[in-house]
Formats: sequence, C-alpha cells, structure tokens
Amino acid sequence: MTELEAITQVCQNARQASFSLASMSRATKDAALRTIADALVADTAIIVAANAADVERATNDGTSDALIDRLTLNPERLKAIADALRDVAELPDPIGEVLRGYTLPNGLQIRQVRVPLGVVGMIYEARPNVTVDAAGLCLKSGNAALLRGSSSAYDTNVALVAVMQDGLEAAGLPRNAIQLVPGTSHDSVKHLMAARGLVDVLIPRGGAGLIKSVVEGSIVPVIETGVGNCHVYVDAAADIDKAINIIVNSKTQRVSVCNAAETLLVHADIAQEFLPKALAALKEKGVTIHGDEAIKPYCTAAGIEFAPVTQEDWFAEFYSLDLAAGIVNSVEEAIDHIRRYTSGHTEAIVSDSASAIQTFVSNVDSAAVMINASTRFTDGGEFGFGAEIGISTQKLHARGPMGLAELTSTKFIVTGDGHIRG
Amino acid sequence: MTELEAITQVCQNARQASFSLASMSRATKDAALRTIADALVADTAIIVAANAADVERATNDGTSDALIDRLTLNPERLKAIADALRDVAELPDPIGEVLRGYTLPNGLQIRQVRVPLGVVGMIYEARPNVTVDAAGLCLKSGNAALLRGSSSAYDTNVALVAVMQDGLEAAGLPRNAIQLVPGTSHDSVKHLMAARGLVDVLIPRGGAGLIKSVVEGSIVPVIETGVGNCHVYVDAAADIDKAINIIVNSKTQRVSVCNAAETLLVHADIAQEFLPKALAALKEKGVTIHGDEAIKPYCTAAGIEFAPVTQEDWFAEFYSLDLAAGIVNSVEEAIDHIRRYTSGHTEAIVSDSASAIQTFVSNVDSAAVMINASTRFTDGGEFGFGAEIGISTQKLHARGPMGLAELTSTKFIVTGDGHIRG
Repeated sequence: MTELEAITQVCQNARQASFSLASMSRATKDAALRTIADALVADTAIIVAANAADVERATNDGTSDALIDRLTLNPERLKAIADALRDVAELPDPIGEVLRGYTLPNGLQIRQVRVPLGVVGMIYEARPNVTVDAAGLCLKSGNAALLRGSSSAYDTNVALVAVMQDGLEAAGLPRNAIQLVPGTSHDSVKHLMAARGLVDVLIPRGGAGLIKSVVEGSIVPVIETGVGNCHVYVDAAADIDKAINIIVNSKTQRVSVCNAAETLLVHADIAQEFLPKALAALKEKGVTIHGDEAIKPYCTAAGIEFAPVTQEDWFAEFYSLDLAAGIVNSVEEAIDHIRRYTSGHTEAIVSDSASAIQTFVSNVDSAAVMINASTRFTDGGEFGFGAEIGISTQKLHARGPMGLAELTSTKFIVTGDGHIRG
Repeated sequence: MTELEAITQVCQNARQASFSLASMSRATKDAALRTIADALVADTAIIVAANAADVERATNDGTSDALIDRLTLNPERLKAIADALRDVAELPDPIGEVLRGYTLPNGLQIRQVRVPLGVVGMIYEARPNVTVDAAGLCLKSGNAALLRGSSSAYDTNVALVAVMQDGLEAAGLPRNAIQLVPGTSHDSVKHLMAARGLVDVLIPRGGAGLIKSVVEGSIVPVIETGVGNCHVYVDAAADIDKAINIIVNSKTQRVSVCNAAETLLVHADIAQEFLPKALAALKEKGVTIHGDEAIKPYCTAAGIEFAPVTQEDWFAEFYSLDLAAGIVNSVEEAIDHIRRYTSGHTEAIVSDSASAIQTFVSNVDSAAVMINASTRFTDGGEFGFGAEIGISTQKLHARGPMGLAELTSTKFIVTGDGHIRG
C-alpha cells in the first residue's frame, strides 16, 4: 500500500467511525473517556518506554533542552494527561443543543441543532499531550480524530493512540474513532490536506510556518490558530500601577505562548510618568526593548537593553523577552498601528477613559480585546470553557479560544405535516 | 496598472472602507440602503440601457432564452430589486448582538459580540439581481462588498455598482463599501482567490464547476454554497397522499433550484401502494425516472418515461424534470444510500413512524432534514430569515440558508480592573 492509499484508508475509516459517534449518547462517550484515562495510567510503562526512544533520538539529533522537555513524558505528566480526559468527561455534551427553534406561520417547526463536524484532522508539533487532549475533545464532541503529530514524537504517539484505541474497544466504541495518520513524511500532511470530502476540517497547531503551509496548501477547510502578535496600549488616562502590572504580566509571565504581548504602545501624554517605572520593572525581568526614536531616551535612562525597532520587529511574534515599543500621540494612532501589524489575536488597552476604551474596542478587530487586563487571559481555560483545542485567529466559524462548541456544526431539522411550497 | 495591481487596489480600498463600516450605526446603514434603493429606481433608464447592451451581446452569442431571461432587467424587475433593499433596511442589525456574556470568579467580565467579517467577496453568475442583493446584505451587516459577476452581465453590473456608489456617497458613506472587481478575465477571479489578508471570505454562487474551482483554488477562506442533490425517502409508514404531494412538489415545483429533489427512495413495503399513484402524478408533470431494476416494472405499468439509473444519475443535480429513483428495504438502507451520494444540502423523510423519523434525523448529516415536508423549504426566505446570501453546504461557519447573522464573525471583549494572570 502506498502512503496515499494508507492515508485514504485511514480517512475512510474515520468517516465510518464518525457515523456511529454522531448519535452516541453522552453517557457512552463519557464512559469511554474514563476508560481511556484508566488505560493511559495502566499502560504508563509502555508509553514511557516508547517516549524514551523519541527522547533518545531527539537528544542524539542535538535537540534543545527546551524542546526535549516538551517532548518528555513521565508518569506524573501521563497522570495529568489522563486527569484532563476525566475533566472533559465532566463537561456538558455540546451535541444536540438547540441553538434556534421556532414555528413558522404555516406551522413548520424549525430547529437548528448542534451536530459533530464529522472527521477532524489535527496537525501539530512536538508535545505529545496534544495527542490525547485533541483526541478527548474530538470524542466528547462526537468527532472522529485524525492525529498527525511531529515525527520527533512518533513512537510516543503510536503508543498513546494504541492505548487509546484499546480503551475505545473496551468501552464498546469503534477503534477508528481515534487514529494516528501513518507516516512521518511531509507528503503525509499533503495527502491529508487534499482529502476534501473525507476530512471535514484541519486544525494546525504549532509555529507560524506550519500554520501558513496548511492554510495555503489545504483544500480541506482549515481553522487557523494561534499566531499572536499581541499589543498593549497604555492610554493617556491609564492607571500607572495597573498599566505596569499588565505590561509586565502580558510580556513576561510566560514568553513562549501566543497570548504573550509583543508590542507596547504608550500615549505621549503619559510617557514621562509611566515609562521610567515600567522600563525599570521590565528590566528587572530581563526584557530587551526594540524601540522607536521617541522611546529611546527613556530606555537609555532606565538602562534597559535597547535596539532600534525594525519593520520585522513590529510584525514579530518574538516568543522571547523581546518587546517592540513605541510612543503614539492618540488612541487613533495606536489603532492604526495595530491594524497594520497585528495578527488579530489579542490587544489590550489600559485606560480609565470611557471614550478612549470605546474607540479602541470598536475599532480594533482582533479575536479578543482586553480592557484593563493582561493579554494572557485569552485562553479557553481562563475563559471558563473547561477545555481548549486551540485559539482561532480567523474570522470564519470560530474566533478566539475554541472549546467543545467550536468543534461542532449545526443542522436544521424541519418538521411538517405534509407541507409543500405553493 | 496591471489587472493584479488593479484588483489589489480594489481590495485595499474595501479593507479601508470596512474600518468605518464596522462601527457604523444601524440608522446610518439603513438610510444608505434606502438612498440606494431610490437611486436605482431614479436611474432606471441608465441601468436598463446598460443591460440592453449585455442582452444584445448575449443574443448575438447564441445564448439560450432561459439565460437571456435571467440576464434581462426591466423597470419592473429593477423596482423589485430596489424594494428588496428596503426590506433589508427593515431587518434587525446583527452587529453588536451579545452571544455570550458572563463574569468569571476573578471578576473578569467576558462578552462575545457579533462583528462584521470585514471584506466579503462574491463570485457569481449571470443574474444581475445578485449584484444588488449581495451588496445590500453586506452593507447591512457592516461588510465591504467585492462583487465579481459574470462577464455576460458586465455592463449591467458596472451601471448598478456606479448607481449604488452614488447612493452611498449621497448618504455620507464611503463609495468603496461596494465595489465591482475590475476585469472579466478568469485571472481576475484568481487574483481575488489569492488575496488572503485583504479579503476575509469568498462566497461563490452558481454552478457546480464555479463552486468547485473556487473551493479548490482559493487561499482566502470560502463558504461553499448551493449544490443540492436532495433526496426524498418515502418510509413504509408514510401517509400516501402526503408522500405524493411532497415528492411532486420537491421535484417539480421549480426544477432549476438547489433545493429541488433529485432522488426518490421508496421503502419496499409501501412500493406497491405508493408507486402507481406517485408515478402517475409525476408523469403528469412530465418527469422522467432514472430507476433501478426494482422500480422498473412500476414505471412500465405507469407509462412514465424510464431510463436505467447510472452511478452518475445517483450523484446528479439534474436541474430538470429527471428524477433518480429506487426501492430500499429499510430506513437504514435509505440512509446508506444518502450518505454515499448526497451533496449534504437537504433530505426529506415522509413517515408516521416516530422511530423511523428518529433514525433518519440522527443519521442523515445534511444542512437540512425535512420531516413530512418538501425539500423546497430550505431557503432563507422560507425559514423567516428575511434575506439570503446563499445556502451553505459546508460544515464550518454556516450551514444551510445564510442570512445576515452568517455574514458576521465575533470578538471577545474582556473587561478587567487591572487583572493579571497568576
């Protein structure tokens, strides 16, 4: 069997499994999630051994310690992954929810009801916890999952999926509800991106390069996730202490995530008061400023690392302690800057001016707009969704953190009594 | 300026216009819709003259009478188009609607609010009423419209858009809120499909070939519309008279539309009672049956036109008085058939059996499922949406008839008081 044939087979198996998942009761799905969680813990030794092979290969390839850490599974991490599945079992089932329901003058009863998407393909990088998290969310929402992890985690993913499939079978569900896409070549991604009609949606999770290649190469519909060039705008009417806390938290609380801030814009009227304290606090965290001419003297005075800002910096998602920064003369100027450079993830305004807030919120078109809060809150867990499959930065279907509801479609069910059109 | 440069310019103009449309009040948008409606009527002579040029060219090219009819505008039709714009002005504004709103334990207030998509591109065929309908729905939902009609209607579309732009200007809105994509070459569609980042969504409306080429060629997100291979399943427990009315209405009330039925599946247990009467009624309407072996003797007995059904017939959207037909032994067999051949638009069951209906509704995964009603009801107007931009047959974003709400996205607005993540 060629790789293309193998992947087509996997897609057809997923479609077949999706038929029985679509009408499965919540109790059945939740029982399967708990059975899988038990199986993952029971088979810890097998999974950790498979993971050790991936880790050894990565170490021999000279992979960085940070990436090795993201790749590594140990019994504690595996237990946490299993517990997350049990948490998903506790969440309400999105399937069957009636979103609209009404009766027309002619007596036709119309209901719009949530149904699964069908077959969901995930394309993602190193972290093996995504393999289980994504499979669990797909199962709960009645979707068959096709998982295409990175080649560096291949042995781990093979082991995790085998254990999950055993769990499915033990719970009386089709094994093909969760499948690993065979092969680790780039072609296997290409075949998946061409499987329109067999795969209902692809969700890429990872770096900007991966996401761009899937978005541009796929004829299967794609949900674009995660690239975050997030801005914090400190308005003339900002509370200084809140503004300092928010930029420090947004930039430094965790730098390697999409909802970390990458750009600071400061209103000229508050620069003199705000910047010395803010830059001191950022310096303490080890931040480097990529600044414009107006902010340079403040950086020099504060003794913080400084580099002249470039066009690339304004567009950059640094994933590091680097921060682009500039001074603007109005909220409108901040909005213009954000429109030009944002990736559409999250932007924050710090202000006590109702009119400045209103202007900012109405004119900044990103998945999330924070008013006097850290950009780091754009997250399914923080928003109370209970789970997150990714953060959409596109406008179609889902925008912002995606939970179970965002893994569904709808259908209209129309009940008549012999109704025909006149 | 090359065609690519011209189209890029048009897209950038649309993006710029979308910024002011996004925060425009309902009153302003409705006033503009009414001003445009008045302008279309006032400029009837100009528009009809431009249309006459298109009609003459089409006639010289040997275009069929049916297509000429769809292309032709006269004062009555133009008045109806203008009235439809006034109807759109009466509809509620979808923008600003709060879809979810709650306060987290930490005090963060979260609201998910409807916002425009931004720039909507329509790619469509002959009918010039789509030019005005689509522009009106985009304007009402705060989106800038990029219109790419067929070359056969180019002069008409140039005239319609010029009049609408004058109306926009008279109402104080940017002319670029509604623009025609320049050029009639196939390349102009290609440039539009490549304008990711400038265009937020493309909606193709027309034949299957057009839709397929946009779906497969575009890196701008696409909403797939309209191909309808709709099925009517007559269950063993069907009311015979209702079933006859429904299949006749679904097939023959209007044959050239996506919600017309293309396949009839009859349960074997009711075939003997149902088929003689149903085939007589279909024969009276001039229907030709493309039937399987089991249905053939009934067709012979009824004297209705008959051809052996092919694989292509089962997949076909005939757009004519042709109907594929077969006999099945159970509701499950009907479901299997539909899963294999459907385009996912609309399927109907005629039955008085609650369990058969339940099985059918749970297992048929199409945009609309009709219970004892004609497939012809899948329509934005019939569903009470007040307007329709198309019927989506995909699962992402919108499924089924699309009204104003389906031309929107959402954003999260999160209000804190200096909140940071711990």
